[in-house]
Amino acid sequence: MAQPMRKILVEFFYDTVSPYSYIAFQVINRCNKSWTNMDLKLKPAFLPAVMQQTNNAPPAMVPARGRYMSHDLLRMADFYKVPFKMPRNISDVMMNKGTISAQRLLTVVATEAPQYLEGLSREIFMRVWVRDEDVTMVESLKDACRAVGMGHEVDQLVGKMAHTDVKDELRRVTQEAIDYGSFGMPTFVAHLTNEPTMLFGSDRLFLLAYYLKQSWPCDVTEAKL
Amino acid sequence: MAQPMRKILVEFFYDTVSPYSYIAFQVINRCNKSWTNMDLKLKPAFLPAVMQQTNNAPPAMVPARGRYMSHDLLRMADFYKVPFKMPRNISDVMMNKGTISAQRLLTVVATEAPQYLEGLSREIFMRVWVRDEDVTMVESLKDACRAVGMGHEVDQLVGKMAHTDVKDELRRVTQEAIDYGSFGMPTFVAHLTNEPTMLFGSDRLFLLAYYLKQSWPCDVTEAKL
Repeated sequence: MAQPMRKILVEFFYDTVSPYSYIAFQVINRCNKSWTNMDLKLKPAFLPAVMQQTNNAPPAMVPARGRYMSHDLLRMADFYKVPFKMPRNISDVMMNKGTISAQRLLTVVATEAPQYLEGLSREIFMRVWVRDEDVTMVESLKDACRAVGMGHEVDQLVGKMAHTDVKDELRRVTQEAIDYGSFGMPTFVAHLTNEPTMLFGSDRLFLLAYYLKQSWPCDVTEAKL
Repeated sequence: MAQPMRKILVEFFYDTVSPYSYIAFQVINRCNKSWTNMDLKLKPAFLPAVMQQTNNAPPAMVPARGRYMSHDLLRMADFYKVPFKMPRNISDVMMNKGTISAQRLLTVVATEAPQYLEGLSREIFMRVWVRDEDVTMVESLKDACRAVGMGHEVDQLVGKMAHTDVKDELRRVTQEAIDYGSFGMPTFVAHLTNEPTMLFGSDRLFLLAYYLKQSWPCDVTEAKL
């Protein structure tokens, strides 16, 4: 009798404020269709807390890095065939507006309606990183929920965003990433053997493929973006 | 009559102080054997000046990044099948000792004995990143020259390291990297069309392959490391 395939848990920590999280999110979910030994778990977390607690600074704080990042994001999106459009004011999106509400909503959904987590995360990511829409407003988040097929539960779920236990849960998941050694996002944690392997950045997806003995890059035609 | 293949100039800016430069150096030279449309030009430069002029800081200044970097380097070396051994004191190697003499010697060799540039760069890189040997001493650099087959010219070339025109040339090449938008090393500049495309980091080699329409990763068996 054939051995049942051992699925390898891969946790993906992300914040919709992060453009590299966006690209990695699109790609890892695409890979998830063909990497049959991966058990992917989406973990919405809060990037600013990770940066602050580890004394890390966003790459764009160095002007030359910031200029490079704009090109690099377009190149990565082109390589992976991921829709991407630079927001008119990326520093306003990342530094001022942020995504605390969105990440709290995703935390609610992760707990109470996990069947919508992938879809809603994608919808929020695309509002920010493709359509340059503001996700700081509750109405925008409600629209996002409806866009992925939620019905009567929208008001109830959105209403829970500000609950203490939701804030605590987002803090807990963020702390989990930090405890794995994360200092930014996206962060992958692959439970390959006894010891979890933390991989930082969308540019370590090829290593994840290598460890999972899967092909990279994933075929762009095989799954919906 | 077949069109002659257009070779694409790829400049590779590196400092032997940088472990990611070391890995990229090994891999790009391996790729150079099979990427027949690449015209690779090795450009020894001075990383500390790039960091200082762009107000960039080494990743290891953030403790969590430093811890991660040690794992990441071992993983990248394993993936690419590049020999690598963490020096006993990596921060002493990178922050205190540095490689100014080595980079000046490579600058001399780039100008006066370019046939030795790849070999001597590899020898110096391996002294630092495989054998944990000190390359700050002139005798060590002379040994490195002899190890790659140089003979009577060693004393003369090493003697030129401190000349003003050599220091100026190293500054000029470093400034060239900065002018391309570099803020760290390794930096690749691919002259794809009219506009040079600057790619930062060993983790953008797959993009370079994509732009050159070549395969990645390069076959590890096909070329000497």
